[in-house]
Amino acid sequence: MTKAKVVINGYGTIGKRVADAVSLQEDMEVVGVSKTRPNFEAKIAVEKGYDLYTLPESVESFEKAGLKVSGTVEDMLKIADIVIDCTPGKVGISNKEMYDKIGIKAIWQGGEGSDIAPISFNSEANYEKAYGADRVRVVSCNTTGLCRVVYPLDKKIGIKKVRATLIRRGGDPGDIKSGPIDALVLDPVKLPSHHGPDLNTIMPEINITSCAIKAPTTFMHLHIINAEFEKDCNSEDVIEILKNRPRIRMIKDGIKSTAEIIECARDIGRSRNDMWENCVFEDSIAVEDGELYMFQAIHQESDVVPENIDCIRAMLKLEKDNKKSIEKTNKALGINN
Amino acid sequence: MTKAKVVINGYGTIGKRVADAVSLQEDMEVVGVSKTRPNFEAKIAVEKGYDLYTLPESVESFEKAGLKVSGTVEDMLKIADIVIDCTPGKVGISNKEMYDKIGIKAIWQGGEGSDIAPISFNSEANYEKAYGADRVRVVSCNTTGLCRVVYPLDKKIGIKKVRATLIRRGGDPGDIKSGPIDALVLDPVKLPSHHGPDLNTIMPEINITSCAIKAPTTFMHLHIINAEFEKDCNSEDVIEILKNRPRIRMIKDGIKSTAEIIECARDIGRSRNDMWENCVFEDSIAVEDGELYMFQAIHQESDVVPENIDCIRAMLKLEKDNKKSIEKTNKALGINN
Repeated sequence: MTKAKVVINGYGTIGKRVADAVSLQEDMEVVGVSKTRPNFEAKIAVEKGYDLYTLPESVESFEKAGLKVSGTVEDMLKIADIVIDCTPGKVGISNKEMYDKIGIKAIWQGGEGSDIAPISFNSEANYEKAYGADRVRVVSCNTTGLCRVVYPLDKKIGIKKVRATLIRRGGDPGDIKSGPIDALVLDPVKLPSHHGPDLNTIMPEINITSCAIKAPTTFMHLHIINAEFEKDCNSEDVIEILKNRPRIRMIKDGIKSTAEIIECARDIGRSRNDMWENCVFEDSIAVEDGELYMFQAIHQESDVVPENIDCIRAMLKLEKDNKKSIEKTNKALGINN
Repeated sequence: MTKAKVVINGYGTIGKRVADAVSLQEDMEVVGVSKTRPNFEAKIAVEKGYDLYTLPESVESFEKAGLKVSGTVEDMLKIADIVIDCTPGKVGISNKEMYDKIGIKAIWQGGEGSDIAPISFNSEANYEKAYGADRVRVVSCNTTGLCRVVYPLDKKIGIKKVRATLIRRGGDPGDIKSGPIDALVLDPVKLPSHHGPDLNTIMPEINITSCAIKAPTTFMHLHIINAEFEKDCNSEDVIEILKNRPRIRMIKDGIKSTAEIIECARDIGRSRNDMWENCVFEDSIAVEDGELYMFQAIHQESDVVPENIDCIRAMLKLEKDNKKSIEKTNKALGINN
């Protein structure tokens, strides 16, 4: 079998993880990654054996840094079946024209506006929409985390209304520029936040409001989810539904924080301590007066990685059935619930 | 006029603020404060002119530290009309027997269980219940903050249900022992949290659920309040109600975090940068689909201080009308909206 040829434009927090995840699959391979600066990530990419590409104006700086460059980003796009745009949020839009010109299929990340592509993607909720598509956006870590819980609960019980509160990490662990250091920041002040509408790009029928704040922590986002159900049910019903989802990990055994989840990821040997699954605190799940209350933690650096893999399979028609794609991706990454 | 004689048992975060606030009133005075260790706070208490008392077993350590002690805690209780117990949470209960024996009126703080006293107190919501009472608990900073918003909205519009999310500061600014440093901690994991029931000790008729997490910040708690109303209303109605309350400060002018509020408190010359009022983010107030969404910040070190002053007035029958007591307290502290 010929493997599908994938290139990653932007080898940063998401890009390097997507590259490694693609490399682990049987039906696709990385044929190039791009970087604008010859930093430590670029050096490690070369050490890992990825062919490195950069912007025409950056070739010289890479060579000065002793890093072999295989060509320009445009050269890279010409040898691939699909490009995963992992450039920083709001930068991806500027690459659209280039992808169009070369005629390559493209996936963008949730940092871009929903109008960058006609389809917003989640593996469980709307895989079939991306089947054979040319332009798709994989929604953000937070929206992905919300979809994974809201979709099955709506299908199995029926949801009248969701109220989601997102406590966002201020910056990633390796990020030395972001804040806050000692503040809770309304993000945004004006309520509700854009996260509800973002979920509606995938599930337009869900009545959802959301709000978000930024907190001085690096490890994970924390979601507080309140949902009114259409039908009577209890916490056991909810646990039963969630624990059987392919990308939900039930958290228990005394864990009560984001930091302990990451410590757990380190202990089980996860690459870069990634937690690709939603981490649902099982003991938090309560249904009172027809309403669900629950906490879940979302690993902002990695939860969209398996969705990107499934999205590649859908767009390149490598697999028609989303369940089978999810199974392949999970098996290759080592996600088993 | 003879001033009412007040003593403070436990001169820590709350105690030192209550002592200073009592000293500013015209109808009461501090006749003693107690401390178990001769630390910097004890030294500053003496410098400020407060008579210092301690436990019998601690007298020697105070003398060794060069601090003049006026007697034991029991001696202190005998010269006062009322004691404000500001000992650490769950310690106050052990003082109950001593207060009973001496026959002194006592106020406890919200760190104690609601069963420590027959009455839980909030200045606006139930001042009259504490009138002439012997044992009262001033509820916690968070519950005080919730009461100040829920009480007027329920009176003026009518509340069907409140869902409150509390993002708690991990420790106070001077606290070098508490955490987390880099985590979001479910506090508690099991939902809902005890804060709803605590508000019910003051307003039993309110249908409220709550949840709480701890974040790595020191300055303030942040509340995310969702409330379903009995009647139609809009955000202007809510703003109008809240901005006319005596202990709500509307936050605007681009402020979008807890840290900026404290910077503002420093700039306006507040003692210890205290923010005695609820800080409601005016631009966050939204009413959609019959439901209110809003953010407010609560200064955990100081918001209960004015309530303690009003509670003294009620218990000692210094003032029958809560509006007048609130006005006196606010004027003395410099709270003006």
